[in-house]
Amino acid sequence: MTFDRAVTLERGEPGRYAGTTSDAYWNLIGPFGGWIAAVLLAALSDGAPPASAPLSLSTNFAAAIEPGPFVVTTRNLRRNRSTDFWFAELMQTVAGSATHCANATAVFAGRRSTAAYREVEPPDVAAPESLPRADLAQIAVKWFARYDIRVAAGGISGESASNRAVAWIRDLPSRPLDYLSLAALCDCSFPQIFARTGQAIPISTITMNIFFHATPAELAAVGDDFILSDSTMRVAGHGFFDQLTMLWSRAGTLLATTEQVVWFKFGP
Amino acid sequence: MTFDRAVTLERGEPGRYAGTTSDAYWNLIGPFGGWIAAVLLAALSDGAPPASAPLSLSTNFAAAIEPGPFVVTTRNLRRNRSTDFWFAELMQTVAGSATHCANATAVFAGRRSTAAYREVEPPDVAAPESLPRADLAQIAVKWFARYDIRVAAGGISGESASNRAVAWIRDLPSRPLDYLSLAALCDCSFPQIFARTGQAIPISTITMNIFFHATPAELAAVGDDFILSDSTMRVAGHGFFDQLTMLWSRAGTLLATTEQVVWFKFGP
Repeated sequence: MTFDRAVTLERGEPGRYAGTTSDAYWNLIGPFGGWIAAVLLAALSDGAPPASAPLSLSTNFAAAIEPGPFVVTTRNLRRNRSTDFWFAELMQTVAGSATHCANATAVFAGRRSTAAYREVEPPDVAAPESLPRADLAQIAVKWFARYDIRVAAGGISGESASNRAVAWIRDLPSRPLDYLSLAALCDCSFPQIFARTGQAIPISTITMNIFFHATPAELAAVGDDFILSDSTMRVAGHGFFDQLTMLWSRAGTLLATTEQVVWFKFGP
Repeated sequence: MTFDRAVTLERGEPGRYAGTTSDAYWNLIGPFGGWIAAVLLAALSDGAPPASAPLSLSTNFAAAIEPGPFVVTTRNLRRNRSTDFWFAELMQTVAGSATHCANATAVFAGRRSTAAYREVEPPDVAAPESLPRADLAQIAVKWFARYDIRVAAGGISGESASNRAVAWIRDLPSRPLDYLSLAALCDCSFPQIFARTGQAIPISTITMNIFFHATPAELAAVGDDFILSDSTMRVAGHGFFDQLTMLWSRAGTLLATTEQVVWFKFGP
C-alpha cells in the first residue's frame, strides 16, 4: 500500500468523501496521526482553489478510528481573494453509531513575491546516505515500515542535554514530496519525552498544528529526497507534553513547522 | 471598557452567543486579534465541562469584523472522559449579508498528576518595575492602551542578531490572569518582522495556534502580575511570516506557547 493509495478518497456529494483505513499506516490502537492529517488535507485540498496552496492545518484527534470505511465532510467557511478558510470532520459509523473521530481547520493561500528572511538554521548533521536506516522493528508499529528514517541525533538512548531529535525522513517507497506527504511527515518525529523517561511510555497526540512555509515550487525542488526533521520538547506536565518540529530540505529550505500536544502517562 | 466587559457574551439558544465589538480593543481595520481569540474561547468555555480547562485553541481570522454586534456559534464535536473537542464560528450580519469572520477549534482537558519536565528557560531580563512602560502612542492603535507593555529586549529599533522580542505584559487595568486574558496576551508580542524591515509594514494575522500549558492553579498563582512574552520569527517569505512565542510567569512557569502565521506586504 503506497502513501498515494492510502490517502485516496472517493468523491461523493459535494463536500463529502469516502475512504478506508490503511493497514499499512496503522499505529497502536488506530491509524498513524500523520495519515489522519493527510487524509483531512486531501479532502480539503479537493475544494480549495487550484492557484492556492495549504498555509496551515490544525488537526484535532478526538477518538480512535476503527479499521474500515470512514467519511470526511468539508465545509468552505470563507473565500477571500487570496485566502480560503475550511473545516473538515472525519466521521466513522460503526455498528450503526456515528462517531466524530477527527477534525481540522485549514487555510489555503496564494503565495506572492515579497522580501524573505530566515532566522533559524538547520542542524549540521551527517548526510542520510552515511547513516543507517533506523531499525524500529521492536516497536512493532506498522507505519514505521512506510518511512525511511535515518536518526542523526537524539533518540530513545539519547538522554543528552540537547533535547533535540534530528532525523532524515522520507516515504517508502520514495515519492515526490507534496503537501499531503509533508503533512504526514510532520508527525514522524521521535517523541522527545521518550528520551527523558528513557522508555516508550503510552502517548497519544491530541492536537497538531502545521504551518506550510514551502511554495509548490520549493516542494517540487525536493523531489523524492530525504527531508530533515529537527524536533524538541518544550514542556511536559499534568498529563501532556508538547513537541515542536522544523522540517528542512537538504538545500536548507524551511518547508514546514509543526507543534503538537500529546497526552502521556508516566510518573506519580 | 475593561477586558471582562469586552469579552462578555449574551447566551442565546444553546450554542449561540451574542456580542458587540469593543472600541477599546480596536486594531487598525478590525478588532485586536487577541480579543477575537478570547471571545471565541469565552463562548467555547461556556459549554466545556467545569472540571476541564483549555488545552489548545486554533483560531483562524477569515474576514474583517465591522464595529457592532456579532454572533458566535459553538458546536461540541466529541466528548471523551477527560478531553472535549469544540468548533466555534464568529459571524456578523451587516446590511442583511452574513459574513463568516473567524473560527476556532479548541480542546479542553482535565489535568492529572504526572512526571514533569521543562526543557526551555525563560529569558534573563530586568524586572518590569525597572523598565518604562512602552510608549506606543505614535502607532495609534487603541488596544495598546489596554496593556501595560515593558519592553525588555528587541523592538522596532532592535535590529540585533538575536531575533528575539521580550516584553513584560499585563492587562490595563490589571486583573487576575485567566485563560481568556492569556489567550489575548498571546497576540500582544511585537511583530518581529518589523525589526527586520525597520518599519511598521502592513501585516494581518491569518491563523494563531495556542497551547495552554498552565493549570488553573498555576494561573491563579500569577494573579494580576506581569507575564513575560518571549517571541521570535523563524521565517518570512512569499507573503507570510511566522511568529513563535512563549509566555512565562515571573516565577518561571511556562504558561502558554503560541505560533501564528501573518500576511505581510514588503519588498519586491
